[in-house]
Amino acid sequence: MPVLVMKFGGTSVATLDRIKRAAKRVGVEVAKGYDVIVIVSAMSGETNKLVGFVEETSPLFDAREYDAVVSSGENVTAGLMALTLQEMDVPARSWQGWQVPVKTTSAHSAARIEDIPPENIMRKFGEGMKVAVVAGFQGISPEGRITTLGRGGSDTTAVAFAAAFGAERCDIYTDVDGVYTTDPRICDKARKLDRIAFEEMLELASLGAKVLQTRSVELAMRYKVKLRVLSSFEEQSDDAGTLVCDEEDIMESNVVAGVAYSRDEAKMTLVSVADRPGIAAAIFTPLSEAGVNVDMIVQNISEEGRTDMTFSCPTNQVQRAEKAMMEAKAAGKINFHDIVADTAVAKVSVVGIGMRSHTGVAAKMFQVLSKEGINIKVITTSEIKISVLIDRKYMELAVQALHDAFELEKAA
Amino acid sequence: MPVLVMKFGGTSVATLDRIKRAAKRVGVEVAKGYDVIVIVSAMSGETNKLVGFVEETSPLFDAREYDAVVSSGENVTAGLMALTLQEMDVPARSWQGWQVPVKTTSAHSAARIEDIPPENIMRKFGEGMKVAVVAGFQGISPEGRITTLGRGGSDTTAVAFAAAFGAERCDIYTDVDGVYTTDPRICDKARKLDRIAFEEMLELASLGAKVLQTRSVELAMRYKVKLRVLSSFEEQSDDAGTLVCDEEDIMESNVVAGVAYSRDEAKMTLVSVADRPGIAAAIFTPLSEAGVNVDMIVQNISEEGRTDMTFSCPTNQVQRAEKAMMEAKAAGKINFHDIVADTAVAKVSVVGIGMRSHTGVAAKMFQVLSKEGINIKVITTSEIKISVLIDRKYMELAVQALHDAFELEKAA
Repeated sequence: MPVLVMKFGGTSVATLDRIKRAAKRVGVEVAKGYDVIVIVSAMSGETNKLVGFVEETSPLFDAREYDAVVSSGENVTAGLMALTLQEMDVPARSWQGWQVPVKTTSAHSAARIEDIPPENIMRKFGEGMKVAVVAGFQGISPEGRITTLGRGGSDTTAVAFAAAFGAERCDIYTDVDGVYTTDPRICDKARKLDRIAFEEMLELASLGAKVLQTRSVELAMRYKVKLRVLSSFEEQSDDAGTLVCDEEDIMESNVVAGVAYSRDEAKMTLVSVADRPGIAAAIFTPLSEAGVNVDMIVQNISEEGRTDMTFSCPTNQVQRAEKAMMEAKAAGKINFHDIVADTAVAKVSVVGIGMRSHTGVAAKMFQVLSKEGINIKVITTSEIKISVLIDRKYMELAVQALHDAFELEKAA
Repeated sequence: MPVLVMKFGGTSVATLDRIKRAAKRVGVEVAKGYDVIVIVSAMSGETNKLVGFVEETSPLFDAREYDAVVSSGENVTAGLMALTLQEMDVPARSWQGWQVPVKTTSAHSAARIEDIPPENIMRKFGEGMKVAVVAGFQGISPEGRITTLGRGGSDTTAVAFAAAFGAERCDIYTDVDGVYTTDPRICDKARKLDRIAFEEMLELASLGAKVLQTRSVELAMRYKVKLRVLSSFEEQSDDAGTLVCDEEDIMESNVVAGVAYSRDEAKMTLVSVADRPGIAAAIFTPLSEAGVNVDMIVQNISEEGRTDMTFSCPTNQVQRAEKAMMEAKAAGKINFHDIVADTAVAKVSVVGIGMRSHTGVAAKMFQVLSKEGINIKVITTSEIKISVLIDRKYMELAVQALHDAFELEKAA
């Protein structure tokens, strides 16, 4: 029997009624002849409640105990889903991470899956079980303790199972009905994509489109797992949602797949830094040690042995960044005249694998923004992405103008 | 290091503050030099919530999935207790049933503990860990699935650990401060017992004094585990609460240890049953199959080959019992003229190991009830207990009169 993996997130299993609705979707796939592995999250709100208990008990908690506590929400959903399927006469049983076993590293609360031996579940499929319901987000360390994979880890669990079992597809049921060309809340012409390439999805995810956890997309790309994102709140046809797949599986696509944005960016500039070999390391090592997530980096034109160094980071890390820089200056590790923070900026990006073969995307992007009178503060590019930092007040305008200019409302 | 087992019930770990309070008690015992095994229940209300989910999802649930779901509450408390102890600088870690492992039978939701290998926890004690926090109520079956021990199973877990680790004592922290000569709510002269024999405790527990689960007392008696019942809501001295122990450890005791009662009893009489060998089996087998918990049984004097058979059962099982009897009659398995149910009765019992060597307790009991004008409907006796069925309206009067007559307000 072909194997299908179906993953239901927290909002999709938030109540017993929603679990029943999800179970009916599972029943539809079983009726088509699939052996189904269902990955479930905790009922929405449960994990937050448990995390709250842990943090209130112990602000600097032992991550091993954190994992033992917060993993329990998924166990509840897994049992309830198995019972719901049994009520529908679908042979099903639940599995906790350690029972499969989902073998992970010992990096508690941020563990990585190392191996999922398929034998136990396959034997049950051989005995007539149709659905294995697996608690997502959790595994077991080499020391035999419970681990968790970090927030959003159930997506990663689902993709890892799809890879381990050679599943035909991995369907991620969530509260949105797919991946859009941009955020429909700020651009009403946003269009749902039927297909998107792994690389594009990775860029969109890391740019803040929170449909799929980045790690799950990386994993899917590495093992060529076909990922489908679709809504658990609508009746679904076979081609519903968005398929995240290898670019070879996409016949025809727009040069630009989507426009992403990130609202809470800050731009920081170290003015007149002594320009010498090793200066970048001297600046960014203390920032990294201070836990500042530096995103874009631009080194301005150097004059007379001095340069301006500009970087972006989340707005809520600005103070931490300033402190780290002042300390590095006081310790004589770096030298600069001034540090300037602009916390009213946003990042807007266009993403598309078509850019590899089509030139002119950057030029067009800059023309569009210029025509709208939007000043570009920082530019960075990758093979399939162009990002600009602009004043936050122009963010929605920029997204809408770019969406129009690249005609994203039209399918390829 | 000597080992101490401490068990905290649901009300004792109902909130993070109460967990902290319980952890402080654990800290006191660690400071005395004990290696401590703490058994925890789920935070009160949690297990009921989970049972509710299961029953709503699947009225005739798969007990294996029931166990997987309802056991999760204890896992949460175990992790939180370990974190709380760590915050107090007490080296501690949590263990789920399968991690110890607590090996049980496969009788899901009513499993029996078969073995608790102490090696894993003892090795950690050897490495400097002071407290092993174990999720109560749960274990693992030979098939590798999670089992639960049935309601109140955490008491049984605690006693089983005390036996497996040769613990000096097993302290059961609960919401009452010990075992009383009778229920203080209906007799204000009720006195807390310093010590009570296992056999007495067993009779009191099975008679409805819900301080300890019956199985845990049986287990403690078999393995000679000293059990102490005490309150988690009061400051405790070394001799607080009630010690449940071998009768040899009780120097001096009253002939009668306590007066117990059970309010929701019903008396049923099959009138004019054909009196032949095998008739008792013909009556009580269908009752057992119908799930009727028959308690007292009396066969009245037989006349002309016919007899009256009287038995008691919980009031809410009367309809089930009547149905089973009418069906057995219709099937020709038994014959009787009439079936009469009296649902307004209660059971009152006096319990004491002293009865073994002292005569006259029964006579005194009957005199006391007679003097109060209370009619006795059924009598049964065991070596250390005399029970009578009386009209429910006289129940409190009977308890008070017997408590006075046997002078239970005075210590031996």
